[in-house]
Amino acid sequence: MSVQSTRFSQNGTWRDLSLSGLVMMIAVIISTQAFAQTDALPSWNDTATKKAIVEFVTKVSTEGGADFVPTADRIAAFDMDGTLTPEHPMPIALIPVLADIKENVAKNPLLGARPAVAALLKGDLKTVLAQGEDGQADIIAAATDGKTTEEVAANVRPMLDKAISEKFGVPYTKTTYKPMRELIDLLSANGFTVYICSGSPILFTREISDEMFGIPPEHVMGTWLETKVEERDGKTVLVYTGNVGHLNDKEGKPVTINLAIGKRPIFIGGNEGGRGDIAMMRWSKDRNGPSFQILINHDDAEREFVYSESDNYSLDAAKQFGFHVVSMKDDWKEIVGK
Amino acid sequence: MSVQSTRFSQNGTWRDLSLSGLVMMIAVIISTQAFAQTDALPSWNDTATKKAIVEFVTKVSTEGGADFVPTADRIAAFDMDGTLTPEHPMPIALIPVLADIKENVAKNPLLGARPAVAALLKGDLKTVLAQGEDGQADIIAAATDGKTTEEVAANVRPMLDKAISEKFGVPYTKTTYKPMRELIDLLSANGFTVYICSGSPILFTREISDEMFGIPPEHVMGTWLETKVEERDGKTVLVYTGNVGHLNDKEGKPVTINLAIGKRPIFIGGNEGGRGDIAMMRWSKDRNGPSFQILINHDDAEREFVYSESDNYSLDAAKQFGFHVVSMKDDWKEIVGK
Repeated sequence: MSVQSTRFSQNGTWRDLSLSGLVMMIAVIISTQAFAQTDALPSWNDTATKKAIVEFVTKVSTEGGADFVPTADRIAAFDMDGTLTPEHPMPIALIPVLADIKENVAKNPLLGARPAVAALLKGDLKTVLAQGEDGQADIIAAATDGKTTEEVAANVRPMLDKAISEKFGVPYTKTTYKPMRELIDLLSANGFTVYICSGSPILFTREISDEMFGIPPEHVMGTWLETKVEERDGKTVLVYTGNVGHLNDKEGKPVTINLAIGKRPIFIGGNEGGRGDIAMMRWSKDRNGPSFQILINHDDAEREFVYSESDNYSLDAAKQFGFHVVSMKDDWKEIVGK
Repeated sequence: MSVQSTRFSQNGTWRDLSLSGLVMMIAVIISTQAFAQTDALPSWNDTATKKAIVEFVTKVSTEGGADFVPTADRIAAFDMDGTLTPEHPMPIALIPVLADIKENVAKNPLLGARPAVAALLKGDLKTVLAQGEDGQADIIAAATDGKTTEEVAANVRPMLDKAISEKFGVPYTKTTYKPMRELIDLLSANGFTVYICSGSPILFTREISDEMFGIPPEHVMGTWLETKVEERDGKTVLVYTGNVGHLNDKEGKPVTINLAIGKRPIFIGGNEGGRGDIAMMRWSKDRNGPSFQILINHDDAEREFVYSESDNYSLDAAKQFGFHVVSMKDDWKEIVGK
């Protein structure tokens, strides 16, 4: 940096410098400072996984290189539950609706006939979780039935703020996986646009995406619920109909990404445990040009949770298609924190 | 600008200036230059409409003012056909599919049973247009049935590039309404994020949005067609199913905006002629806080087209709800051009 300063100062005083010259100098100073930073992923151990991530980000951002990707195509998408934050003991999107569901089923008993809703009302969380994303979506659709988008949005944070994670001893809104937050920040700093592509309903994820993951609400994709325009007190509102519009899981994820962005992401993050992310990882891998996929393996009983799929579907797919498996146990120095 | 330069040069040489000092100076110079520009809307006549637009943009972007809106909420959405580019003699999205539709109906005769498709095959454009956005979506769904998203996208530009607008004597890709392009640029320059919310399918609009309107493909909302994941030659692709997923017209527009962004836009542009934009204009108007809606009136027979709704629905709504009507005849100095 001092070299640059000296050279410029020899050229004369402020008066002699053009605006473009100033802008160029600022760019040089800023990039020099950026390169001086030593480690953008301090919560990752120095393993092959970390090395591969940094190499990929560097090669696609290096203009003139064989694998350079223009910023317009530097798209990353991450699953949320189990990839950016724990999904055990239950997906955090369920927390804000637990109170509403009873009230709504009392008003409209038909909603209680849905298997996941019935299980939840009986306190049978195991059955609820066995229904996967599908059951979760049914529960949230039932809990929001007849409410406006604004009423529901206003309810998410106050309900969530009361909930403390037993495992980590902090509010759920503080349970971001620290290594993943660093990865999102690294990608953003290198010209990537980063999206969430989650099985959780967007009405929930949008309320926490910026704070927990540094991802703005308009970059949230997810399961969506049907809405319709109604007039209340002379004003137009959007009201939830109680029906799921699209379940954003498995083969539904590439469909949503195409709808929202129209491009195959070059970077995908997902996790094993629910078979939900392989379809979007394959769709990314099959693009023309470089791409990178990571699959989080929940293999750390002490610091997080251990769980896997009975048929090992996602880990087998990672081997078959060349996705990078992230071991929480071995690759991550820290788990939860900002 | 000279005042600023002098003051800074008196402070000393380059060596003495901090990075933040430099950035601040650049910001001052740039903003000074921006204010020095006289007219951001040169293709608009100096009417009350233009004055109201500039006043609104200024007040919502003025920090500390009573009507200031943070950039995160400075969202604008525009209809496309009839609002940003002519929709007569037919919506431009139909142009690239005219060749494909015959071939696809030959393969799958059921597609030909749809009224708009049948009319198109008989060359009865009047009946096609009478079906509105609905018929247009059916035609495009039929024309893309069984093709991959990438095959369809690759076809749009080559087909469109061959088509010349008889009325304007230029390719359809050059038929942007110049005043609207200036308005989009003015909004973007003032911290707005600008979206298209069109009845035309996104698979079409994304291929031309950046070039014609300065709006990137990921900011395009529109009618969407169903897709599903398939494997072809060992690679995953998304294939159109021949079905319309969502018709983005009338009450369908607020639904799409909520899905894509999750916020009510503070600026909406639409047009009379198809009753399609009033629902999203009302939804914008009914937000908490300032908002602005313009409705383009096609009243210039000589320079564009004259058409209206039999029941005057949109113009009546503009009066009732306080939307600003833009007369192409009186408010626009020029019509088509970049």
